[in-house]
Amino acid sequence: MKTFLFPSSDKWRELLKRPAIDASKLEDIIKPVLEKVKVNGDEALKAYTKEFDKVELHQLLVSEEELKDASSLVSQELKAAIDAAKKNIEVFHRSQAGGVDKIETTPGVVCWRESRAIEKVGLYIPGGTAPLFSTILMLVVPAKIAGCKEIVLCTPPNKEGKIHPAILYTANLLGVTKIAKVGGAQAIAALAYGTESIPQVYKIFGPGNQFVTGAKQLVNKEGVAIDMPAGPSEVAVVADANANPAFVASDLLSQAEHGVDSQVVLISTSDVLVKDVAIEIEKQLAVLPRREMAQKALDNSISVVLNNMTEVMEMINEYAPEHLILQVEDYQLLIPKVINAGSVFLGAYTPESAGDYASGTNHTLPTNGYATAYSGVSLDSFIKKITFQEITKEGIQSLGKAIEVMAETEELFAHKNAVTLRMKS
Amino acid sequence: MKTFLFPSSDKWRELLKRPAIDASKLEDIIKPVLEKVKVNGDEALKAYTKEFDKVELHQLLVSEEELKDASSLVSQELKAAIDAAKKNIEVFHRSQAGGVDKIETTPGVVCWRESRAIEKVGLYIPGGTAPLFSTILMLVVPAKIAGCKEIVLCTPPNKEGKIHPAILYTANLLGVTKIAKVGGAQAIAALAYGTESIPQVYKIFGPGNQFVTGAKQLVNKEGVAIDMPAGPSEVAVVADANANPAFVASDLLSQAEHGVDSQVVLISTSDVLVKDVAIEIEKQLAVLPRREMAQKALDNSISVVLNNMTEVMEMINEYAPEHLILQVEDYQLLIPKVINAGSVFLGAYTPESAGDYASGTNHTLPTNGYATAYSGVSLDSFIKKITFQEITKEGIQSLGKAIEVMAETEELFAHKNAVTLRMKS
Repeated sequence: MKTFLFPSSDKWRELLKRPAIDASKLEDIIKPVLEKVKVNGDEALKAYTKEFDKVELHQLLVSEEELKDASSLVSQELKAAIDAAKKNIEVFHRSQAGGVDKIETTPGVVCWRESRAIEKVGLYIPGGTAPLFSTILMLVVPAKIAGCKEIVLCTPPNKEGKIHPAILYTANLLGVTKIAKVGGAQAIAALAYGTESIPQVYKIFGPGNQFVTGAKQLVNKEGVAIDMPAGPSEVAVVADANANPAFVASDLLSQAEHGVDSQVVLISTSDVLVKDVAIEIEKQLAVLPRREMAQKALDNSISVVLNNMTEVMEMINEYAPEHLILQVEDYQLLIPKVINAGSVFLGAYTPESAGDYASGTNHTLPTNGYATAYSGVSLDSFIKKITFQEITKEGIQSLGKAIEVMAETEELFAHKNAVTLRMKS
Repeated sequence: MKTFLFPSSDKWRELLKRPAIDASKLEDIIKPVLEKVKVNGDEALKAYTKEFDKVELHQLLVSEEELKDASSLVSQELKAAIDAAKKNIEVFHRSQAGGVDKIETTPGVVCWRESRAIEKVGLYIPGGTAPLFSTILMLVVPAKIAGCKEIVLCTPPNKEGKIHPAILYTANLLGVTKIAKVGGAQAIAALAYGTESIPQVYKIFGPGNQFVTGAKQLVNKEGVAIDMPAGPSEVAVVADANANPAFVASDLLSQAEHGVDSQVVLISTSDVLVKDVAIEIEKQLAVLPRREMAQKALDNSISVVLNNMTEVMEMINEYAPEHLILQVEDYQLLIPKVINAGSVFLGAYTPESAGDYASGTNHTLPTNGYATAYSGVSLDSFIKKITFQEITKEGIQSLGKAIEVMAETEELFAHKNAVTLRMKS
């Protein structure tokens, strides 16, 4: 980690710069994949799975038997952990449901909003050696609370045509009935257009590599909703002189082990703390299985020492981190100053891992500075809010004149007439 | 309007098909515009304004003096109407603010969400002869309630380099301080990248032609948030045998007068009503200033007679209209059956015009079937919800084991260690 001591604020932007992501160059590769799946459906999915995942599938959907087998392969210990996480995520996301609040804006004019689930949603879970079953919890729990009718999960098979049992177990536990063995841009195409095996959905969620992300952006342009734009995961840790260097180091490493492109930023008011953390990182790194990857991420990462907490929070809001950890004594005072962040972890005993897995908050969060305009996934991501209005005969009499005048100014005379007719009746 | 009597449900999709919109062909035209504004800033904006709007501007931002002049050109009657609408829109959107609800998911583990305004937002208001000042109300009122710090408005000037006084008056009344005379894709580029005169924003709102819409989609791919994908405006009116044909006709015409590509659908259980509405349309159309445009929109529109209200609501949810008007006696019974719609107007005395201008609901709504996955603009559109969590020493003891087991299964050992260290301390 490169350390910057008291940089002036005009240098911050450059310091905090993330590597540019340009998905547009991938479009030429992704577009034909989307097109082929749109036209040839399952056949195209099977051909791409053979080409990219090196396995020939006869059936794209996971069978009842595979689900049963998976359950027997998952340890009781893991099942208990998943249950604990599920419970917390349910409690927190259920608390996000709003009631219906009818507002009489003018006598006789009542307006309100009602929530409806997005009927059909698709979830993408990446493949690879480590099964990201935690993301299934984060996406399916709120989808179920919202009341989504159709939840389709796509994830690539391994070379034996299998899906990791932890993924199958979690999906089945949460009540996902359609799990398809398909990955990459072809999976996104299947969810966007539908095939013989995979139903078309209205919104697609979940992380993925650059092909998956690029495909999500392309189908989004065609009108399929997506959770949010994606970028590499990142954390900013704010630590004061009293912070525990071992804790801080462990949080920075948690982020760094995600991948070589992970972004890790340490901001402190104490140069002593920054030095102590560097020593702790070396210690912890030495015994970490993914140390090479973490080291590369750290090489691109920075620590910054600033004069005071006002400057620190200004820098945080400029960076807009996905995860923000506040390991400072008086963190309560900083809460109102957090403007741009995805999820915030308060105090010494709140590691990011807690929110990644089991505390109850969602781990699908805005990266790449998108926290300036986007929220993380929540119950809101799985519903639409429809406005309703009900106007009485008396209500249109009081409101009518204003509508007539405005419609006339906008030269929309039929709009005006719709009111005039009712006022006269 | 073409009438379909009792079509079977397998024919509905074809019947309800909207004209395809393909913005991708425009990209070759829009991309160089974006690029030029990114590189040359104000200079590029002025050059495009000269080319497309046929006017040479020395200053892009509207001056204090122009704002004063505008106010004197707006009638007292229109000012009163705008005030009435503003009050209602404020009341309804203010009611959408949620409180902070702290949830203890596990003893010692507290999670909550707090709302923060998106700090910088940009609004686009189209030009043309009719000034769409009502859209300013719909976008600025919630932006102000949210607490957005910087609100930038772009709208194209006329050939004299001027903006319609109703637009300037409304923007100024609501406290917009930066109004730029720039339209088209170049305006979207200015908001996305920033220029000397126009500050960069995090999210862009507002309607526009195909170049504006295409530009919004392109900058969205680069990470700038947008309100929603856009398509032509549309209404579905559900009317039973007792509906007033004149009211129904006036609502259909309100939509048809928006443009030749407007979508208008009438669905009824009564073929008599459908015939009566057709007669009323002819009558009202004859005296409408925009009758030619409305006629063309009607030529592409349909009326459908179905067997019962169950079928009617199924068709509505298949269509997912931007506006849904329920002119039926027992509309209360239909409310729970509305799944896919942007905004719903209940009963005989609730014309769409009310929501377009003054009842309090927002008129920026999902078109083109996007109501399956998108909500209309609301206070939510101008805020982000940040999750916070605070775990005590005891809390991490109870939660820690589950996190350790899950992190280990996902092969993320630094994630596990961040918990282990804390549990041991």
